[in-house]
Amino acid sequence: MKRSNVSNNVIRRLPRYLRKLDDLAGKGEERISSDKLGRQMGLTPSQIRQDFSCFGEFGQQGYGYNIDSLRKEIGQILGTYRGYSAILVGAGKLGTALVQNFDFIIEGYTFLGAFDIDPEIIGTRIDGFPVYDVAQLGDFVREHKVDIAILTVPRHAAQTLTDILREAGIRAIWNFTNTELEVGEDGPLVESIHFSDSFLVLTYHLAQEDDREKQ
Amino acid sequence: MKRSNVSNNVIRRLPRYLRKLDDLAGKGEERISSDKLGRQMGLTPSQIRQDFSCFGEFGQQGYGYNIDSLRKEIGQILGTYRGYSAILVGAGKLGTALVQNFDFIIEGYTFLGAFDIDPEIIGTRIDGFPVYDVAQLGDFVREHKVDIAILTVPRHAAQTLTDILREAGIRAIWNFTNTELEVGEDGPLVESIHFSDSFLVLTYHLAQEDDREKQ
Repeated sequence: MKRSNVSNNVIRRLPRYLRKLDDLAGKGEERISSDKLGRQMGLTPSQIRQDFSCFGEFGQQGYGYNIDSLRKEIGQILGTYRGYSAILVGAGKLGTALVQNFDFIIEGYTFLGAFDIDPEIIGTRIDGFPVYDVAQLGDFVREHKVDIAILTVPRHAAQTLTDILREAGIRAIWNFTNTELEVGEDGPLVESIHFSDSFLVLTYHLAQEDDREKQ
Repeated sequence: MKRSNVSNNVIRRLPRYLRKLDDLAGKGEERISSDKLGRQMGLTPSQIRQDFSCFGEFGQQGYGYNIDSLRKEIGQILGTYRGYSAILVGAGKLGTALVQNFDFIIEGYTFLGAFDIDPEIIGTRIDGFPVYDVAQLGDFVREHKVDIAILTVPRHAAQTLTDILREAGIRAIWNFTNTELEVGEDGPLVESIHFSDSFLVLTYHLAQEDDREKQ
């Protein structure tokens, strides 16, 4: 499988393809041409063919793509069903909401539990998963070889917990703290969801509309 | 102010600049060169100058940027302090978490309240804001000229509520439903946070690391 130098833009489109293919499969569709897929996703057919060509040959000229095999191929590329393990660090409302909706996030991962500093929730359960004392975080990550930490702590605690996770050998941090984490050169992968950035892109476009109308 | 044809990549970098400048201002810094800003953000100085040049002249050759005025300029471009109004549609855990953390999202917006279908929470309050019956949603948007709907309903309800919001004249939807919304040609702006896409980008990189090690 070819994989060298795949651009970030291509990587970020892969989950969109997967969602679209899931939708199509859910509607009972079996095949789709790159033309039709492109129209439905706002991409050109040649862009789609180019994206997929980074990973090998998925379609057959003139026959389009088999939806089920394409889903499996893309799912495989995206690391689904590899049994990656995840923990939640910060069991507040946002973290709890993420865990409770976690089934929509990825198939074939293993969720191990949550960590928090609040004595009132340590020892309770979220969706059946235990909530541990955050003091145990480093040892737990070392003992269980955890792959991914979902970081949903308040901003002021973000870097301290990142340091603990990094030292314990975590492989990846999914960052919801609205701050940039410093992980150093050999540190874990970091993927951030910055709510405020997304909101400000929306208000940017509103402001643009308003300014255009004033002109 | 020049604004035509600003690329999506530039627009998406603006909130990152704003966060960085907020950090620097918080540390008491007053000026920063494009060199230093670039190093701290992983961008080249010329990229930074190019990004800002889309919107006018912010820096002075040889003197760098005044942090406080740059923050204000970028904030203005991003539509902060314009008093945009927002409502929450779907007052579950995720929506509630967003509203409670809303102060980190944008300064100078107006939050008007939440809507839900659950009789148990209709009439209660979230962070002091009323929770209304979702049956009133269309009328409320029309009467209050709401700018932004934060959509945090279950996936199966996403399109129905989008249609109601669109018909009532909402200007923008901040979409957390993990599905693509159909809004038509003249419909509202849509900005989506797809949790699963972000998570899959993380597992993509983990899978890459694993495959490299096996080779």
